[in-house]
This record gives sequence, structure tokens and C-alpha cells, in this order.
Amino acid sequence: MAPVKVFGSAVFANAARVLACLEEVGVEYEVEEVDYMAKEHKAPRRLARNPFGQIPAFQDGNIMLFESRAIAKYVLRKYSKQQAAQHQLQVVDLLREGNPEEAAAVDAWTEVEAHTYLPAIAPIVYECVVYPARLGIPPNLAVVEESLEKLSKVLAVYEAHLAKSDYLAGDFFSFADLNHFPYTFYFMTTPHASLLESYPSVKAWWGRLMARPSVRKIADGMVLRGQ
Amino acid sequence: MAPVKVFGSAVFANAARVLACLEEVGVEYEVEEVDYMAKEHKAPRRLARNPFGQIPAFQDGNIMLFESRAIAKYVLRKYSKQQAAQHQLQVVDLLREGNPEEAAAVDAWTEVEAHTYLPAIAPIVYECVVYPARLGIPPNLAVVEESLEKLSKVLAVYEAHLAKSDYLAGDFFSFADLNHFPYTFYFMTTPHASLLESYPSVKAWWGRLMARPSVRKIADGMVLRGQ
Repeated sequence: MAPVKVFGSAVFANAARVLACLEEVGVEYEVEEVDYMAKEHKAPRRLARNPFGQIPAFQDGNIMLFESRAIAKYVLRKYSKQQAAQHQLQVVDLLREGNPEEAAAVDAWTEVEAHTYLPAIAPIVYECVVYPARLGIPPNLAVVEESLEKLSKVLAVYEAHLAKSDYLAGDFFSFADLNHFPYTFYFMTTPHASLLESYPSVKAWWGRLMARPSVRKIADGMVLRGQ
Repeated sequence: MAPVKVFGSAVFANAARVLACLEEVGVEYEVEEVDYMAKEHKAPRRLARNPFGQIPAFQDGNIMLFESRAIAKYVLRKYSKQQAAQHQLQVVDLLREGNPEEAAAVDAWTEVEAHTYLPAIAPIVYECVVYPARLGIPPNLAVVEESLEKLSKVLAVYEAHLAKSDYLAGDFFSFADLNHFPYTFYFMTTPHASLLESYPSVKAWWGRLMARPSVRKIADGMVLRGQ
């Protein structure tokens, strides 16, 4: 039996974040599908797990968790060293909590993803990928245009930053980079993916992210496609 | 000379978060005012510190940081044990990173604050406190009404949760609670503060937060008042 269970498959961007972390540390896990269209995540038995009715929720024995970034950090903290010791592998240290300065850089760019990058890219993903696939409605082009403009400004700052180091928090892959994967992946299935051509350092960084085996594996389950 | 410097005073909600953490661990610090109305946070020398031009930024020797939650965690990680040892006090452990389960509860409710609580309460604070004080314009009542409705739903979940434990992550004060202080403080200066009367466990929790000496001290510098 898998030790941990994720409620929500990789098709949900926030579940993909958790699943990629589980792959990074090499924990066995089980995925329980949540029927989004039937609003199953709002059903009483789900709300007992996640009072805000979001996807994903997570179970590890008696521990029930919600909020994808919190779940992901729990997985990284609890299982990185344990799995490395068990399989005699190098520890996957994506949080760097042993070093306050590195941890702060990881945290800062994790916050940037949540509060600056996501508000710019997510509306494009909803309009061009999620709504067409799930609701059969075409993109609202005004929303897309406005968000592309916002995203361009954000990417200009990323470009200057990533010209100086291979990854966001320094010259090491971290939780900050990984957090960018799910929404960027869906964005790259839209006709607007070419925006990245104007930001060569960002594009090279994205190539490094997509080369991670954990990311590649989870991306295979992200079956929505943009239009 | 104070070892650390915060760029932005307590009047800025996100700076107040950082300052309350500095008070919690008892680090000496200096505050450098940022002239918001003159857009000083967008000036080149500020952008060198914080590429997204937000308030606050932070300096600790050669280390420059941005993103208030990342700065706050850095302060807690680096200085909690150090200050406690130096002054023979109990360690202020607001992150609980030594215990994956407790840390996950702290993280989950920290994320809830950022992604669910804040989007409901912040528009009310902007409309009723920030815009009138800074721009001299009256509240947009439609925005306020809509946000009060959202906030009521969020508070209903908090009420059920806080009926079971004194604080959000369990029976201990944590970073998750502290993060709620700045925006809730400003909200409580508005005519809508009475909303909390309908949520007795939330109200009692807010009373416990406001009884923290760190919070009281920083609140004294939050001089904007709602209308």
C-alpha cells in the first residue's frame, strides 16, 4: 500500500505541484480522482479533509492536509532525508532550510510565484486551457491580452534575474522553480507560448525545468491543451 | 547600530508583518521610511533591492531580501534561537519546522491567509482605509459589500476551526496567526468591524492576537484609520 494519498490528479495544476514533489523525493503515492464537474470537492466528506473545498487534499496515515504549497513542503521536509537514507541516494534539498540565506531566496521566489507570476499567467491558462476544455467556452480575448501585458512585465524582471543564475534562488534547482511548472506548462500549450522567445534566459530556465524527470513524468498526466 | 534594517514602516501592512516578527524574536532593527506618495519604492536604488518595487525590502548585512513572508521567515529562522540563547529566554518557535506535522499546519493556514482570507478582507481595507487616507477618495460600496459577503463565508470556516483550538495551527501561537494581524487590524478600524460579533471564536482569537506585546507595539505605528 502506498504510504500517502493525493486527492486530485495531475490535471489540476495545484495537485501537479504536490505530485512533482513526491516524484522528486521518490515516495510511493496513490492518486484518488476527484470529479470536478460533479463538484465532488465540495461534498461533505471532502470538506472534512479540506474545509475550503479545494483540490488537492492529502493524506499521510492519520494526517490530513490541504493547501498545495503546504502539502508539498511537508512532503519535502518529512521524506527527503528518509528516502535518501533508505535508497542510499543524495538528499533532494529543495527548501534549503538548513541555510537561512538560501532558504530566504527559495521563499522569496516562491512568494513571487504566488503573488506576482501566478496572477499574470493564471488568467491566460483559465481562458485558453481550462474554460475551453471544461466548460466548452472560448477564451475572453480582452482578459488574455491584459494578462499577456502583465506577464511580459513580470518576465522582464525574471529575464534580468535568470541572466545571473541558472535557477531562481541561485545555482540550484529549488521549490521556487518547481512551483512555476504547472501553470507555465499549461501556458506553453497555448498559442501564446511564443512569448517566451523574447526572454532567452527564461526560456533556457524553462528548458531546465522540463528536463527534470519528476516534472516530465507529472506533465505527462496534464492532458488539457490550450487553444 | 541595529543589525537589520526594514525599508518601509508599520503603516504598510506587509512591513507590519515583518516588524511583528522582529519584535517576537527581540532583534534590534532600524526602519527606513519609504515615501509611497513620491513612488520612492519604484526608484532605481529601491528596485536594486526589490526588483518588483514592493514594500517592504530588508537588509541584514550583505543580505538583501524582499517579499514580506520570506523576510519574516528568515528573521524567525535566523534569530529565534540566537536571541533566546543570548538573553536566556525561551525560543519563540513560530514556524515549528522541527515537527513536520505542526509545520504543515502552520504552512497550511499561512497559505489560507494569503490565498483565501486576504483576497476577501484586503479590498475592504483598501476601499475603507487606504484609498480614503492616501488618495482622499471615498469607499466604493459595491466592492465593500461584495468583499464582506466573501469574508463572511471565510469567517464561517474559521469559526468552525477556531472553536476546536485556540490558534489556527493548534494550541500554540504561530506564524499563521501572526500573518492575519496587519489586514485584520486595519479592518477593525472600519465601520464593518462589527462583522466579527457573529463569529465568537474568531473574535476571541483576535483578542488573543492583539494581546501579544509584539502585535500591540507594531499596531501603535499603524496610524491609518478606516471610514
